[in-house]
Amino acid sequence: METITSAKNEQLKHLSKLLSQAKARRLHKQTVLEGVHLLQAYLQAGGMPIRVYIPEHKRQTPEISALLAKLSENQQIPVASGILAKISGLTDAEEILTLIDIPTAPPLPEHGDCVVLDRVQDPGNVGTVMRSTAAAGIKQLILSNDCADAWSPKVLRAGMGAHFLLTICERVDLSAWCPSYQNPIWATALSQHNEHHLYDMTLTEPAAWVFGNEGSGIRPDILDKVDGCVRIPMAGQTESLNVAMAATVCLFEQLRQRLP
Amino acid sequence: METITSAKNEQLKHLSKLLSQAKARRLHKQTVLEGVHLLQAYLQAGGMPIRVYIPEHKRQTPEISALLAKLSENQQIPVASGILAKISGLTDAEEILTLIDIPTAPPLPEHGDCVVLDRVQDPGNVGTVMRSTAAAGIKQLILSNDCADAWSPKVLRAGMGAHFLLTICERVDLSAWCPSYQNPIWATALSQHNEHHLYDMTLTEPAAWVFGNEGSGIRPDILDKVDGCVRIPMAGQTESLNVAMAATVCLFEQLRQRLP
Repeated sequence: METITSAKNEQLKHLSKLLSQAKARRLHKQTVLEGVHLLQAYLQAGGMPIRVYIPEHKRQTPEISALLAKLSENQQIPVASGILAKISGLTDAEEILTLIDIPTAPPLPEHGDCVVLDRVQDPGNVGTVMRSTAAAGIKQLILSNDCADAWSPKVLRAGMGAHFLLTICERVDLSAWCPSYQNPIWATALSQHNEHHLYDMTLTEPAAWVFGNEGSGIRPDILDKVDGCVRIPMAGQTESLNVAMAATVCLFEQLRQRLP
Repeated sequence: METITSAKNEQLKHLSKLLSQAKARRLHKQTVLEGVHLLQAYLQAGGMPIRVYIPEHKRQTPEISALLAKLSENQQIPVASGILAKISGLTDAEEILTLIDIPTAPPLPEHGDCVVLDRVQDPGNVGTVMRSTAAAGIKQLILSNDCADAWSPKVLRAGMGAHFLLTICERVDLSAWCPSYQNPIWATALSQHNEHHLYDMTLTEPAAWVFGNEGSGIRPDILDKVDGCVRIPMAGQTESLNVAMAATVCLFEQLRQRLP
């Protein structure tokens, strides 16, 4: 395989577009994993990359050559040292880019545990919620319009491989979805009526958890359709937790209640 | 009060140094709060700023003029529009900078609930842990050497005002502190011996929680001195939570057990 020596190479220009443009990711149904850790998590979850772009000297390291052993020769594209760092946010030390297919979204869940985000816009928050979701053993994730793009580099980085353990439905009309879902839907929000304290709830049965936008929370028309609002008890004068921490608290309380 | 019209003004140069240099913050025992939200949280917690720098047109808005009503005239320094954005990471829309004294560190706690960070380096993580700590009703925070500087702009931003609800001891020699602390010390770490599952523990008595570096965890010489290692049960194949989420899970489990 010929070594790519210029960032202007057509393949690298394609990677660069996928890294920077949500539109390109959607059009091609592809994204790019940056760094070794995500490639490792992807392979471990049974994923098969389209191609891995990697400097020749990195292929020799034991850790990476063990990973690449799972791939055929023509899935491995050698790139001159320093070129990949030009098109990604990676430092030289980590440079390895993996082109993958974005999995086809499954049908919207009608039951079973799931996590639902309403317009959560910070990529770090979306990725962190994904990590908590996977760690709490939940497999279904639903994102509304105006959430950070799940397959963007920043969300992938914060997710630390959680993406490959979840089924992800994006750009979902939550208002239409709510009535179709058969189990209870809990929203973390303050409410005048129908409010539950998290630690008084029984969370042993399947349910959906909705977490909302960093500033404005969950939209009222969605709140109208949920089964209850959940308040996380807090000590002291703190006004709130951020959305990723709130999700972590709720999902781990659910996990705790279900432990044998 | 004369309006400051240049970023080269001596006072603004001082703010700029405090914003960018840990050394300057330490030398002057001062830091700078960026934006309205932190000023509001600071005043609400009973803090008294040295000076507030603000564009004239912003002082007229009802929200801000209510805040400034608590300050004397000479604590309010008018600055021409657009100047403050030049020395801080703020957008024009938010521009307001507050110069405050960094509180003198109290003596190291010998008992009572506290949270201890060992070389947690990401400012977002340190700030988020502070927010969880305050939300869980804990008032004492201890940071080792090589933690992100608690009073840096990034940590302040992530802390969302938690700083003003905590007593903070920085650059602490944890190895020396551990033996002086009278209540149990729990470390979130995997361990061959002396390991507890979080949800099997009784957490109603005062204790210290130690959380470690993002990559390498807690140093072995500190682990040797704690009373037990705590494992957070996880479902699925996820390898770990990030440090801020792990802290949130532990501190809220403690809070849950102590609720009336």
